[in-house]
Parts: sequence; C-alpha cells; structure tokens
Amino acid sequence: MYSFKNDYAETAHPRILQAMIETNLEQDEGYGLDRHSENAKRSIAKRLGEFADKADVHFLCGGTQANLTAISAFLRPHEAVVAAETSHIFVHETGAVEATGHKILTVPTTDGKLSPERVEEVLEFHTDEHMVKPRLVKISDTTEIGPVYKLAELEKLSALCRRKGLFLYVDGARMGSALASEGNDVTLADLCRLTDAFYIGGTKNGAMIGEAMILCNDALKPDFRYHVKQKGGLLAKGRILGVQFEELFRDDLFFDLARRANVSAQTIAAALKKEGFGFLTDSPSNQIFPILPDSLIEKLQKEWAFYVWKKMDAKHSAVRLVTSWATTEDAVADFIQAVRA
Amino acid sequence: MYSFKNDYAETAHPRILQAMIETNLEQDEGYGLDRHSENAKRSIAKRLGEFADKADVHFLCGGTQANLTAISAFLRPHEAVVAAETSHIFVHETGAVEATGHKILTVPTTDGKLSPERVEEVLEFHTDEHMVKPRLVKISDTTEIGPVYKLAELEKLSALCRRKGLFLYVDGARMGSALASEGNDVTLADLCRLTDAFYIGGTKNGAMIGEAMILCNDALKPDFRYHVKQKGGLLAKGRILGVQFEELFRDDLFFDLARRANVSAQTIAAALKKEGFGFLTDSPSNQIFPILPDSLIEKLQKEWAFYVWKKMDAKHSAVRLVTSWATTEDAVADFIQAVRA
Amino acid sequence: MYSFKNDYAETAHPRILQAMIETNLEQDEGYGLDRHSENAKRSIAKRLGEFADKADVHFLCGGTQANLTAISAFLRPHEAVVAAETSHIFVHETGAVEATGHKILTVPTTDGKLSPERVEEVLEFHTDEHMVKPRLVKISDTTEIGPVYKLAELEKLSALCRRKGLFLYVDGARMGSALASEGNDVTLADLCRLTDAFYIGGTKNGAMIGEAMILCNDALKPDFRYHVKQKGGLLAKGRILGVQFEELFRDDLFFDLARRANVSAQTIAAALKKEGFGFLTDSPSNQIFPILPDSLIEKLQKEWAFYVWKKMDAKHSAVRLVTSWATTEDAVADFIQAVRA
Amino acid sequence: MYSFKNDYAETAHPRILQAMIETNLEQDEGYGLDRHSENAKRSIAKRLGEFADKADVHFLCGGTQANLTAISAFLRPHEAVVAAETSHIFVHETGAVEATGHKILTVPTTDGKLSPERVEEVLEFHTDEHMVKPRLVKISDTTEIGPVYKLAELEKLSALCRRKGLFLYVDGARMGSALASEGNDVTLADLCRLTDAFYIGGTKNGAMIGEAMILCNDALKPDFRYHVKQKGGLLAKGRILGVQFEELFRDDLFFDLARRANVSAQTIAAALKKEGFGFLTDSPSNQIFPILPDSLIEKLQKEWAFYVWKKMDAKHSAVRLVTSWATTEDAVADFIQAVRA
Repeated sequence: MYSFKNDYAETAHPRILQAMIETNLEQDEGYGLDRHSENAKRSIAKRLGEFADKADVHFLCGGTQANLTAISAFLRPHEAVVAAETSHIFVHETGAVEATGHKILTVPTTDGKLSPERVEEVLEFHTDEHMVKPRLVKISDTTEIGPVYKLAELEKLSALCRRKGLFLYVDGARMGSALASEGNDVTLADLCRLTDAFYIGGTKNGAMIGEAMILCNDALKPDFRYHVKQKGGLLAKGRILGVQFEELFRDDLFFDLARRANVSAQTIAAALKKEGFGFLTDSPSNQIFPILPDSLIEKLQKEWAFYVWKKMDAKHSAVRLVTSWATTEDAVADFIQAVRA
Repeated sequence: MYSFKNDYAETAHPRILQAMIETNLEQDEGYGLDRHSENAKRSIAKRLGEFADKADVHFLCGGTQANLTAISAFLRPHEAVVAAETSHIFVHETGAVEATGHKILTVPTTDGKLSPERVEEVLEFHTDEHMVKPRLVKISDTTEIGPVYKLAELEKLSALCRRKGLFLYVDGARMGSALASEGNDVTLADLCRLTDAFYIGGTKNGAMIGEAMILCNDALKPDFRYHVKQKGGLLAKGRILGVQFEELFRDDLFFDLARRANVSAQTIAAALKKEGFGFLTDSPSNQIFPILPDSLIEKLQKEWAFYVWKKMDAKHSAVRLVTSWATTEDAVADFIQAVRA
Repeated sequence: MYSFKNDYAETAHPRILQAMIETNLEQDEGYGLDRHSENAKRSIAKRLGEFADKADVHFLCGGTQANLTAISAFLRPHEAVVAAETSHIFVHETGAVEATGHKILTVPTTDGKLSPERVEEVLEFHTDEHMVKPRLVKISDTTEIGPVYKLAELEKLSALCRRKGLFLYVDGARMGSALASEGNDVTLADLCRLTDAFYIGGTKNGAMIGEAMILCNDALKPDFRYHVKQKGGLLAKGRILGVQFEELFRDDLFFDLARRANVSAQTIAAALKKEGFGFLTDSPSNQIFPILPDSLIEKLQKEWAFYVWKKMDAKHSAVRLVTSWATTEDAVADFIQAVRA
Repeated sequence: MYSFKNDYAETAHPRILQAMIETNLEQDEGYGLDRHSENAKRSIAKRLGEFADKADVHFLCGGTQANLTAISAFLRPHEAVVAAETSHIFVHETGAVEATGHKILTVPTTDGKLSPERVEEVLEFHTDEHMVKPRLVKISDTTEIGPVYKLAELEKLSALCRRKGLFLYVDGARMGSALASEGNDVTLADLCRLTDAFYIGGTKNGAMIGEAMILCNDALKPDFRYHVKQKGGLLAKGRILGVQFEELFRDDLFFDLARRANVSAQTIAAALKKEGFGFLTDSPSNQIFPILPDSLIEKLQKEWAFYVWKKMDAKHSAVRLVTSWATTEDAVADFIQAVRA
C-alpha cells in the first residue's frame, strides 16, 4: 500500500538529518537564539530582495501553531479574520483561532482563493459595534484545494487590504509548492511587499518539523517572541528548527524539493487528463483532485492510500492525491499504470 | 566556554538520531497515529505497573505546551490552579495558563515543593463565587530549584486533593532526573496512582523534542487529542515524537541518561561541599544551586556559562549549575578543578 | 417621528418602576441574594410545572451577557455551538461567544429555525479531533426574524440532542412574545422538559433590564454563579433584577405585556395583508417583516422609524416593524392609515 | 438589624428614581445612543477641565464588567497588569481579568496603595519573553481598604508609567468617596491628566447601577464600544445608565452623596478613636476598619451587620464598617452609642 494521502508521510530529507547529526553535540543557546537559527534567518532574509534587512523571521513548530500565534498576536479582541470557507483555519484546526478569541468570517469560493470582491462584501456587511470588525485577511497559498495565487491576484487583494486598513496574512504550509509551481509569477520578495506576514512551511517540504514566519509589517514585529512562548511554540531546543531551515535554504534545496513534489503530482495529473478525467480544481501544485468513477476508486484503494474528497454525482467522486519530495518515480508510474489498466 | 546553563544545550542522544535515520523513509500515518507513536505509548505504559492498560499517553512538543494544553483541557473557566510561587507556569511561561483563562494561585515555599498545609490555606481563603475556585494542584518534579518529592509527600498531597475534589497534576519536564535521583522512592506506577495526570519530559533528557503526557484519571481522558490539536501541539509528523520515545523506552535509556546527568551534578555538588560551600536548596537532581563568593563567580564566568540565580548577601550569590546526559566527565572535572584553584 | 425600530425604545412598565420605588430604601443583601430575587425565582419556578422544585433560576443583565455566560459555562474549550446563520450570537454580538473561545457552526435557514436535519449534517461533517466538536445547539425563540417554534419542532430537536449528547439552549430574549403568540402550543414546563437551559427576556418585555436564566439540566447547575460573576454579570444591587421579575411574575403581567406587543404587530400585519403586501417570514410575534415598495418605504420613513431589512428586488424591500408593550394603539392605527393612504 | 456591610444595600437615591419616572415613556435610541446618555456624557465631561472636549465617556453596568472590558481592550495577549495584592480585580472578581487572558502581577502593600518603587521592582524582574510583559498599572481609589491617593502620589505613579510605557488605570468604584474625602487634593481633571483611563462608580454612590468609564489616552479610544458590546455590557436600554448619570451630574448630587457617606463613616471613626480604638488603615473614606475586642464584636453583631475583616491577635479583630448616602443619622448615632455602652 503506497500512500498519496498527504505530504507528511515520511520524516525528513536526508540532508536535514545529516545536518542534525553534524551539529548534534555542539553546545548552543536555547529558545532559537542559537547560531543555526540566526544563520537560517539570514539565509531566508537574503531571498527577500529589498526586504532582506527589514523582515523579521521566527521559527515555529507547525501550521496550526503558526496561525494561532500570529493571528492572536496581530488582532485586538473585537477584530476578526476573513478567510475562504475552505480555509484550514476555519475547518481543520479545531477552532484554534476562535480559542484565542477571534471570529473567522468566511466567504464561499470554488477554488479556495479569496477575491477582493468577496472581501468587500464582508466589509460592507460589518458596519458597527454590534458585529465584529474584520481586520485580517487570511489566505492560503497554495490553497487547501490546490490552486496557486497569481501575482495580479495578490496585488489586488493587497491593494484592497491597504485601502481598508486590513492585515493580509498568508498561511504558507505549502508555500514551497506554490512558488515552485509551473507558471508561478510570485516571489518571496513580492510576498514581503504585498502582505503583512506570511509563513513558509517546512514540515510539508523536507523538514521534519518547522515553519518560518516572516513579519513584513513593522507594526507587527514588537514582542512577537512573547506570543510564540505564550502559545507553547518556543522550543528549548529551538536549534532543531534553525538547523533544518539552515539546510533548506543553504542552496536551493527548499525549492528543489517543492518542484520535485509538484512534478510528481503534475505527471499524474497529465496522465489522468489524457485518459479523459476531469478535476475538481485546476491545480498546478502537489495536491490534485481528479474526479474518478467510484468503481475505479474502489479498485485503486486496494493498493493506494488517498482521501476520497467529495461525492460529485451518483457514480463519481473527486479524490485527493498528494505528493511530496519523497514520492518515488516508481510510485507515480505504477499509479498511472493502475489507472490506465 | 563550557555551558552549565541548562540541560538543552545539545540536540539529542545519538541513539535518538539513529532511530530517526532508520525510520526516515517509512511511510506512516500522520498526527501521532503512526506505528512508532503507538509502540512508544505501549513501551511507556508497560512501566506503569497496574496502570499499564488504563493510562492514556499523548506526546507533545514542549513543557509550556504540555502545561497549557492539559490545564485548559481539565478546568472549567472559573477554576484555578494552585502552584508554588517558584513554579515554572507562574513565572516563566509568559502567562500561558492565564492566556487560556485560568488564574494561578501561588503559595510561598523554600524548596519549590507544595505542602498540603499551604494548599489547604488557599482552599480556606477561597470560599465563594466572588473568588476563583481552586481545582487543580500543580507541582513540578524535580522542582524548579532542584529538590525531588518523596513518596510520603506525594501521598499526603494526593490524599488532600482527593478529599477536596482537586486534580493533582505534575509538570515532569525533569521527571527523569527526579526518578533517577539518589534516594528517590517514587515510581511511575506511584505517579499514576497518586496523580490525575503528569508528563515525562523528553526534551531535557535525551530527546530533541517531546514530552509524554500520561492521563491517569478517566474523567480527563475524553477528547484530549482535540485539545492538543487546538493548542497547536498535534504535529503532522507526530512520528518524530513517537520514534524518540520509542527509543528512550526501548530499554532503560531514558533512566540511564537521567542518572548520568544527576551523577555529573552531584559530583560537582560533593566537591563544592567538601570545599565548604553551602547551597540554596538541597538538590539530588541535575540542577544544583551552590552559594559562591561573587569574586569566584566572576572568575568562573570567564570559562563557564551558568546563571547567577540569587544575590545572597553583599559578597555571595547562589548560582545555578545544570548538567545533562551530554555533560562530559572532563567538563565536570575541569569545573571542580577551577573552583578549587 | 414614532419608532417601530425595536422593543426597547421606552424604559419600563409603570408597575416595574412602582415596585422599585416601594422597595427602594429597604436594606437587603447584595449580589442577588436579596429577598426580592429569591421571591422572583420562586414565582418563576412556580410556572415550570413539574420542574418547579428542580430548575435553577439566575438573573442577568442582558441577552449577550446571558448567552456568553451560559455557553462558556457549559462547554469545554474544543466544543462548539450549532446555530442558525441568522442567529443573534453569530451575527450581532460582536463575537462575544468566540471571545470566550468557542466556534459557532451555522446552518442556513429561511425562517431562522434550526431543523434536526440540518443539525445532523453538521454532526456528520465533524468527525474527528481536527475539527471542533459540536456540543450545544442554540436556538432563539422567537427567532430573530419573527417565527416561533411549535412544540413538535422542539420535541424533535430535543430528541436529536439527547440522542447525540448535545445540549439544547434557548435564547429567549423574546420568549414572552413566543409564548404569548397566537397558536403557540409551548409552555415554560415544556421548555424545561425539552431543553438544558433557556432564558426569559425581561428587557424586551416590560423590564428596564434583566433576563432570567433557567438551568434545567442538573449537570449545568454547579457553580453557575461563579460564571455570572466572572463575566461581569453579578450586580452588587442584584435586587433591581429581583424586584423587576418579582413584579413581572407576581401575576400574569409578563404574559399580558407580551400579548399586547404581539397584538400591535399582528394588527399591522393583518392590515398589510389585506392591502396585498407579502412578508419575508410568517411571524406571529411582535416582529413583522412586510415587503413594501421602496417608494412607500421612503414616504413612511418621514414619520416612522424602522429598519429596512433586506432588498427583495429592484423596487421592493422587506422592512422590520417591531412593537412592544409600550406601543400605543394610536401609533398602530396611524401607521396602518399611512400605509393605506 | 441595621447593615454596615456595604454601600449597596439600598437601591438608588430618590432623585434617580424620579428621573427614571419622568423619562420613562419617551422613545429613544438604544445602546446608549439616547439623548440622556449623550447629555450625561457632556455633564461629566464638563467636570474634566481642559479635558472636557478630549475625554471619551462610556457607561457600563458594574465594576467587574468595567475592569475586564477596559483591561482586555487595552492590552495585547502577552501584556500583564500590575496591582496591589489586595486589589479587587486580583482577589474578588473570580478571575475575570485572567479569563480574558491576562496575568495580574501583584505587590504587597499595607494600605492598598501601589507605590512607584514596588512597580519598578516588578518591571525589573520581568525582563524577557519568558515572562509576561507588565503593561498596565491598576490602582483603586479609594483603595479596597479605605485609604485615598494624594495628588503627589498619583503624580509620581503617573510619571513612572509614562517613563516606562505603562498605562495607568483607576478602578473608581468608590471614586466619589475618594474625591469627597477630607483632605483630598485630586480633581477629575487631575485624573484625566495623570491616567490613561479611569471609571467613576455610580452603583456605590446613589445610582441603582452604572459606572462611567473615562478614556483619557487617545490610543485607547478607538472601538471601545465594540469591547463593551462583546463583553455583554452594551445595554439595549442603555438610557437607564444615561438617565442616572445625567441626574448625578446635573448639579453636585454625585459629590454630595459621597460626602454624606464619608461623613457617616468618619463620625463613627472619630467616636471610636475617642474611645481609644485603633484602625487597620488610616481611611478618610466611607469604609473604616476599626480594631475591636472580639467580645465587643460579638455583642454588636446582634444588632448590626458588618464584616469581620481580619483577626489581629487572640482577642481583637479588625471589622469593616461601610456607610453610604442612604445611611441614616440615627443608625450612626445608635451604633456609636452601642460601642460606648
């Protein structure tokens, strides 16, 4: 049974483990103040173009932790988040954001992307103190259902947010896949320019654990480490996050791994298209959602693990196939073969 | 410069890293439902005597996260924690518990241990709905300043808690050191019998990251995973916690490492005693607090890193020396030599 | 300009003020432990049939306070509320429930009523610890848009809740209007039997301030006063709530006032129906939502204050007309006249 | 049995009730946007000297609500309150502030007053992100045990707060008594100048319910109504608060009532001093804490209700006697007579 269930089925890229071994017995400072964390921050900052000297980088353990820490640090109690109805923070984080006191206002989408128009509708509805005050727009890139934001889309969303005094925050659990996707026209420097904060996911792209939060807006920087600590995210051995990101950004490893994951998914997607299958969304990333006959799904499930995502009609369902840097070429080839057969 | 600042200056015991490497490319379930986490839970459970089949084990990333997740899961909004004034959750967790809505009521101590008498005073003071309701007694073992609870002390505290309807919860960030300390008469099975929940710290005893929460009271078990997820502690690659605890409890590695840390600290302590120095507390664990002349401290600080803990008089201060499984015998010998010189 | 904007435009029924005057200089206990509060609780309890000796009664200041206090007292951190999309707690309480840490899961409705089918859909979707756990079903009676629950509807909803282990809680800001509405077949005793808690609104039915919370489920009773105090709802002069409810339930004043409000609204509704106008919802209560030509609305707004609720088409909108015990017969007659003219 | 237990044993000054009656059937806006609330705000503002046009006034129901609403509105999640160990928010508000997520750091005092020295000690201890960040200094005037701040004390505390970037907030549940006390040299304008926010208590000084929050610092003003609403404090019939404060500040009623309360307490105090009794604190306000023989206390308790505050030695206790505007001259005279007898 080979798994396309998710992109966290294996531990870490071998270079990550190697770096762990090499630095293992060095004595270093705790709580992310070690040399490797500092070095990793510099390596990431170098990729931020004109924001290299300006952006603050912090390492966190996982996506839910990153989201709840950032959002609760950024907002006052009456302020709310605007997000897509399919948003991970709304559906799949066990109310982590609400548990810090903030409402999430959702808008329906077909592709998981927030449009300025839909955000404006939320703003128009929330007019006085009897309702929460929308203050932060949260998007995921890639979205939870595959698509990737284009630069023009981010520009428009950012312009709206600035005009309306909203923070723009990006959940980047799969940021690697987005940036490495075919046709992507967004850079990390663009993200710094257009958003107030975003994070770059390590867990789903080669690390065993770790997300790098980038604070771009000066107003959001003060005291961020207090929030990380208070929410339980400041690891005594913070070095293990530093060592990993140091390795991922030592060269282009981070981007190479993401590209490899995308290629695997897109190879399967291309083969399925050729066989005439449709897709729930148009995804250039490492998550694809082909619509297959239920009979085929049943057969495939005997040898492949994946999620059945959504019933489409009486005889068809969309499934979710996720690949990662660790997905083998054989697995991709075998799966395609199995579908064809 | 050699560091006695803390017990998390190195990454992990080599066997931990080796286990990571060996399991690295196995595909496994996410969120701690993998084979290694299951196996690690069984290995820990086996150490719990008659509670082997009863206690629930959950893995978390760090101490603050473990404490805030457990306490917020266990208490209703008006219920409060009773803890020592020196308690980590009260002083050094950036208000993590209060951020989940709960007050911490403190009692003064000299050794960091809570006594039943002091807890009773808190109960007697809190009599009606104008004050919070004390509901959970939180102790740390070892305490934050070195001492270790004796079985008789835990028995008395537990008896009080049961009589008064209070939960007894143990922060075990340094539980290994406590259990492996000279003269210890407490077992993990005793902890199951006497407390409602406790955690066994991995981070400070060989792991790179990870704490094992043991839920002993049936009433506290339902839905605990929801709380771990909501607070950001449910790692996608939960397997990395499982693999580590699997290795720590495969044989007696966990206890051996703790014993090694204790021996290093106690070797230094014995030498200092022999030189006539006194101590802030009577500590059998891996943290010792000798009282040294400020002039000596100044000299030592040129080659050794450690915290000056407390000014004792015009010319003396207590310092904190912490050892770990990674502390070298050379470092111990050199330090003793330096003091003598 | 006469106002049909809401049912809280005047202060209190004269008998309430008279009771305030008569008891003004009596010395009594603080925090709702006074004689009048005790007496008011007994008077309300007597109306609860077989639950007279069982239900707990608590007085609170207002609806948002009642809702946030009850919901945060009843739920554990990972548990969520299920409510109608139009629900006051979801839309018009500035995230008060989320501010206590709980997510509200909504379902769409046309009449503001929750159906068991829709609640079941929510339950089926929320299957594991990555999502919140639905635990409390919250309805409003009357709903926010006029309709009133029938006994059979409450029976079904209650049966589902009991089968699934959910609490059923009723926001009764306009409970008087619901119980006094034409065709109502629900009693306070039914509410005790079918729900876990509900409140009876005083503010919108004759009192100057005050809501009476009835706790029916034994499991929800312990320590409720702690929660009222913690959330800022335990008035030093709690007697002012007691005196008001004592008067409202001394005889049938509470029900008479509600009936009077309903009659005013229904008189207008009948006249508008006769003139051929339709309605957004079928409301037997003191809130009606006629659909009027925008041109007529514009004319009426010169002499009458009311909210335009919803654009229906290019030339028509639904408006909200609210009456109260204080609405004069002249105002009703004049308004009808104005529409006809 | 006559009560000196508290200053909220009666409902309201007759002029307050009269004002309620006179305005009862006027239709007005909800949620504190009515004419009387607006007028009351202007009347209070006029008393603020040069801050008349600058300060924001909001009405709330009670002290706990005022405190939790203000503090949670002012602070970010990692920021903490500094208060006296005897502070009402720390001891007697059921963890209301902690329930909004904020730790309260306490300092011991003998008179309930915070000194700059003690606040500085707290600041010096809290140095990094492992601890909460002290951000708001909260004092009560009068303090909970009688004493009143002198202008010079407030000046010093304010100077420290400004130097260190701390907010200074005053719980003024008994502000009337403080301002009207013999020897007082503080004005409302001083409070505006020296603090960031404070509230003027109505409940304990003639109103049936209501506290007036004054926001002096521009940074704290935006969106305050959202917080009042979210915490359950925005009354639909907010007019009842407006009408009361309008009457209290129509002329000097507010100050006259406070003076009357003080005179009653000080008359008793003078008589007891003359009899040779000592006091727990030196209080010029409406709360006095004489130290009496336990045998006398026992006798007095047969005809007088009051709290025994603190055991002083084997045979003596401090008791708390509280007077109000409603305390009768006869009661004062009779009590003095009873002590003498």
